[in-house]
Amino acid sequence: MSDIKQYMNGLGQRARVASRAMAKADSASKNQALKLIAAAIRRDAAILRAANEQDLAAARANGMDAAMLDRLTLSDQAITTMATGLEQMIALPDPVGEISDMKFRPSGIQVGKMRVPLGVIGIIYEARPNVTVDAAGLCIKSGNATILRGGSEAIHCNRALASLVMEGLSGAGLPSDAVQIVETTDRAAVGELITMPQYVDVIVPRGGKSLIARLMQEATVPMIKHLDGNCHVYIDDKADQQKALDVAFNAKCHRYGTCNTMETLLVAEGIAAQILPALAQRYQTKQVELRCDAASAAMLADYPYLVRASEEDWSTEYLAPVLAVKVVPELDAAIAHINHYSSKHTEAIVTEDYSRAMRFLREVDSASVMVNASTRFADGFEYGLGAEIGISNDKLHARGPVGLEGLTSLKYIVFGHGEVRQ
Amino acid sequence: MSDIKQYMNGLGQRARVASRAMAKADSASKNQALKLIAAAIRRDAAILRAANEQDLAAARANGMDAAMLDRLTLSDQAITTMATGLEQMIALPDPVGEISDMKFRPSGIQVGKMRVPLGVIGIIYEARPNVTVDAAGLCIKSGNATILRGGSEAIHCNRALASLVMEGLSGAGLPSDAVQIVETTDRAAVGELITMPQYVDVIVPRGGKSLIARLMQEATVPMIKHLDGNCHVYIDDKADQQKALDVAFNAKCHRYGTCNTMETLLVAEGIAAQILPALAQRYQTKQVELRCDAASAAMLADYPYLVRASEEDWSTEYLAPVLAVKVVPELDAAIAHINHYSSKHTEAIVTEDYSRAMRFLREVDSASVMVNASTRFADGFEYGLGAEIGISNDKLHARGPVGLEGLTSLKYIVFGHGEVRQ
Repeated sequence: MSDIKQYMNGLGQRARVASRAMAKADSASKNQALKLIAAAIRRDAAILRAANEQDLAAARANGMDAAMLDRLTLSDQAITTMATGLEQMIALPDPVGEISDMKFRPSGIQVGKMRVPLGVIGIIYEARPNVTVDAAGLCIKSGNATILRGGSEAIHCNRALASLVMEGLSGAGLPSDAVQIVETTDRAAVGELITMPQYVDVIVPRGGKSLIARLMQEATVPMIKHLDGNCHVYIDDKADQQKALDVAFNAKCHRYGTCNTMETLLVAEGIAAQILPALAQRYQTKQVELRCDAASAAMLADYPYLVRASEEDWSTEYLAPVLAVKVVPELDAAIAHINHYSSKHTEAIVTEDYSRAMRFLREVDSASVMVNASTRFADGFEYGLGAEIGISNDKLHARGPVGLEGLTSLKYIVFGHGEVRQ
Repeated sequence: MSDIKQYMNGLGQRARVASRAMAKADSASKNQALKLIAAAIRRDAAILRAANEQDLAAARANGMDAAMLDRLTLSDQAITTMATGLEQMIALPDPVGEISDMKFRPSGIQVGKMRVPLGVIGIIYEARPNVTVDAAGLCIKSGNATILRGGSEAIHCNRALASLVMEGLSGAGLPSDAVQIVETTDRAAVGELITMPQYVDVIVPRGGKSLIARLMQEATVPMIKHLDGNCHVYIDDKADQQKALDVAFNAKCHRYGTCNTMETLLVAEGIAAQILPALAQRYQTKQVELRCDAASAAMLADYPYLVRASEEDWSTEYLAPVLAVKVVPELDAAIAHINHYSSKHTEAIVTEDYSRAMRFLREVDSASVMVNASTRFADGFEYGLGAEIGISNDKLHARGPVGLEGLTSLKYIVFGHGEVRQ
């Protein structure tokens, strides 16, 4: 067995053992751990900044670009936000142990479900050190053990954070192995983590498309993930014009780099000539490049950042001030386009027509489907989950924004009185 | 592209198209299809028996053993049972379109969930032809398209059944491609079916451990499955003796070949000397072989079918009148043994002690956990699911017996009024 394999197996074995203790830990202990970790983070802010400075110095020496450096930086405010985030998790209800649907059956047994932790969660993420604390907190609260594999650029900061997490766990009487970080920066460690289903129940990757795509090729452990967010807004010809302008502008321009940002705008031909010029005026203020099909291009001939769309544009997640635009005959064509090109993340219709709204909700096969609201709302906090470990575009298990509940499963429980099968 | 690959891709494409129509089909159409298929099966009973006779003749010529021939046989009663099963599905509530938990958020949007079909289900099964109809019925009712790959031994019967299913779908105005059978008996077809995630959303394998193990190695499409059922009963020293005798006898002897049959009996040392001899008297009537650890062997010295257990016995699913028996100090040891050796299918405790019952329910990490009831109750019909497509030992998505709901997923839906993200 290679050294890395042996090392990862050791982490896995300890995580599996710790997961048993975490599964039966009571809410008070788990909340106490969160409280102690938050306090330790506030106490050691200077130490954390120093560790982060080490990472930043190495990153600068390696010529890391400005955007990455920004994500790697742990500011005073980020430190406070981490601590506050943990304190907010304390207030969330404990999902574990919840019993539901207990019903008597004709045989006399009473059957229902109990919510239980998944076991061991592997988190694979890139530069952002705050994920270390957010993910650890969510896994503790949901009664799971976790193995964290952060970006090698953040290794000093992650080690410092992990030691505070372990201090908090021990202080609350919980096993410190419930949260372990992968100490090696060797890439082979990731390969091991995603192929040891005997120790890891689910992987949550947090990072760019290339990371996720690579993991998907190799993982034998199931993942809660989304590859990309090619989100659509469809403006129906029965749309309220003001709502259409607001939603289509916000869905594109509120933030460009997020997975719930609109990447293709579909407009019904009955309203396109009216709405597109007005919308283009708004996009122009942000210099949004519009990649237009023939029909929309004809309506926006004077738009300064107009490009003709190619087939590839309908599948592209720009993560930038760029938007594909297409005129479609009506609802059926919009739904067909979305179900064909979408990455099944989030889609919205703008319409005042009740039947069309209901058809869009039912027939669009994506994790979040909205009527008259910006796709930017597809988010654990906005949905009221209290926290978010990730977003899933898959249909099995958790779908859409994933909070504490997505880190648990339901098992059947039976209250009997000596019943036997006849 | 090979011929088989091309053929399977064709099935997949047609299934994907049909799945869109099925997802929006109303309950009345789906129920009408079930009704028409049931009527056609009753009408064509003689034709079905003739097709089955062709399969049986070929199987006999190939030297198929008696047990397999029995499973392949489609009796008059089996034909009636298939039709009745479909008619019972009509009475089950339609899971699709159910909207739950719609709550207003501070932003003004209202967020909740809608239950929707998974899309395309691939079913891989062995000889039993009735699976063709049961699985087709469940997939139709849950709004999914399905591709059925039955055992090659049953190909004539399956073709005859599939044509009746298609007749029923068409008669109800639903696409006949919603249920397709794989017409080729080439094994490569299975390899294609489990590796085309673009067309198939989930695979449900129905068959023996060797089939499932082989599929697990190769599948890139997620599976709802269990590999085996190494189920345990733990008799606590606070057990009611009568309940202990009833449950432990029924869990082993009600049926030997089912996945929810007990394979290892754990007995607390405080009650072992009392309960084991009484229980052995019952097992002796069925000539059950007991594979005993040292302590239980000493208590059952006169038992005629006693064998000393080896380490391997604790992991073995016998599917036969054989039972591993172990004396354990108390609850903690029982839970530790189970969480170590169990296949996470179904486990039961027999006890009158409230706190121990609660600990067992919470700490045993299996799909079904029971108090004072036979493990044989772990079954979709016994649990009130109305029907069962399979049983899952996995923690993600469906866990335990899987009915209509397990063939659906929940997507988020948002009712907005023009809201944008601030």
